[in-house]
Amino acid sequence: MADEVKSPLCPRDLKLPGFVPGFLSQSTILAVYGSSSFLVVFFMWILSGRFHKKSKVNRVLMCWWIFTGLTHIILEGYFVFSPGFYKKTTPHYLAEVWKEYSKGDSRYAGRDSGVIAVEGITAVLEGPACLLAVYAIATKKSYNYILQVAICLGQLYGTAVYFITSILEGDNFAASPFYYFAYYVMANIWWVIIPTIIVIHCWKKICAAVNFQEQRKAKKG
Amino acid sequence: MADEVKSPLCPRDLKLPGFVPGFLSQSTILAVYGSSSFLVVFFMWILSGRFHKKSKVNRVLMCWWIFTGLTHIILEGYFVFSPGFYKKTTPHYLAEVWKEYSKGDSRYAGRDSGVIAVEGITAVLEGPACLLAVYAIATKKSYNYILQVAICLGQLYGTAVYFITSILEGDNFAASPFYYFAYYVMANIWWVIIPTIIVIHCWKKICAAVNFQEQRKAKKG
Repeated sequence: MADEVKSPLCPRDLKLPGFVPGFLSQSTILAVYGSSSFLVVFFMWILSGRFHKKSKVNRVLMCWWIFTGLTHIILEGYFVFSPGFYKKTTPHYLAEVWKEYSKGDSRYAGRDSGVIAVEGITAVLEGPACLLAVYAIATKKSYNYILQVAICLGQLYGTAVYFITSILEGDNFAASPFYYFAYYVMANIWWVIIPTIIVIHCWKKICAAVNFQEQRKAKKG
Repeated sequence: MADEVKSPLCPRDLKLPGFVPGFLSQSTILAVYGSSSFLVVFFMWILSGRFHKKSKVNRVLMCWWIFTGLTHIILEGYFVFSPGFYKKTTPHYLAEVWKEYSKGDSRYAGRDSGVIAVEGITAVLEGPACLLAVYAIATKKSYNYILQVAICLGQLYGTAVYFITSILEGDNFAASPFYYFAYYVMANIWWVIIPTIIVIHCWKKICAAVNFQEQRKAKKG
């Protein structure tokens, strides 16, 4: 019976009635995520090259925003709205992703409220905002920089809450040190590094624009 | 014995060994917070009037930022770094504030990790950033708008996590409907309404500046 399967997750006393172990191997899960992400990024790189006067920086940003936006909406959106993913008896790809990821952080299978709150905001608000950022960069909207800053700060705040709550609760949610570093640390660290770089980039652009406007006003005045 | 005092907080099974009920009345606590806040805001209003060409909007913003900044640093900072505030046997004002507020949300006394994470980010990062915002507005720094947006989004994200985690955990942390509305809802709703207004205000300013710069560039080009 499914109920009798002991979950391989940590902490060992975590109760997951109806837990069904994953069917797909780690390499299969990563290969599907990696290759579909590659296709999306490749498609965006080609498409962005067709826009008039798009700098390489903006093309890279568009690739990042489409990748992270789809990750937020599809992967994280599935997690938020599928509380019973760990009971799936058939190899549903998205359920498999979260069964596998839960080895690095069992709070996902355990439906920790902090994790759901952060993932919910990420999937419902930030995901669509990322797609809007692709559009805003492509069409040179005046709100493109501030939108990018807003999303990045949301990602950084979410990651901060994610790591701080884990530390406060004993930092004991990984099945092994390997999963701790490979999933919990390595899969999340990019959402600290890249948003930080983008915030700095866009922050400078905004300050330059505000400065430019102030100087012109001062000249006129 | 202090250990035997049953806490008046909700849920009733919340364990708070060593809990000591508050000494100060609700009206005393509010009077101290209200009058000291009034003094700070009054002082800032007078001071901001001495700056050259400060619009009324910017003067109101400076008053808000000094008020919310000091609230974050002093009140919320005390909470974050005083895990045993509910055991205080003498009437320490800041401990009294949180003993009283815990009637509206017992997760404060219960050291809920989501609440501590949000309050920690608010007290340590956003509090000092609010004081920087006062300085940035006073000295017309080019980063003043983006800084204000960044802090407001942090406050909005924090409040979202705060409310969502409570709902996910059963929304049963208030000692009575009065405390639920007076403390949990009313004391927090201002940090939803005011940051939203400021984000819209600064967002428009930034877009206008970016637009202005783009148009000038286009004219030259």
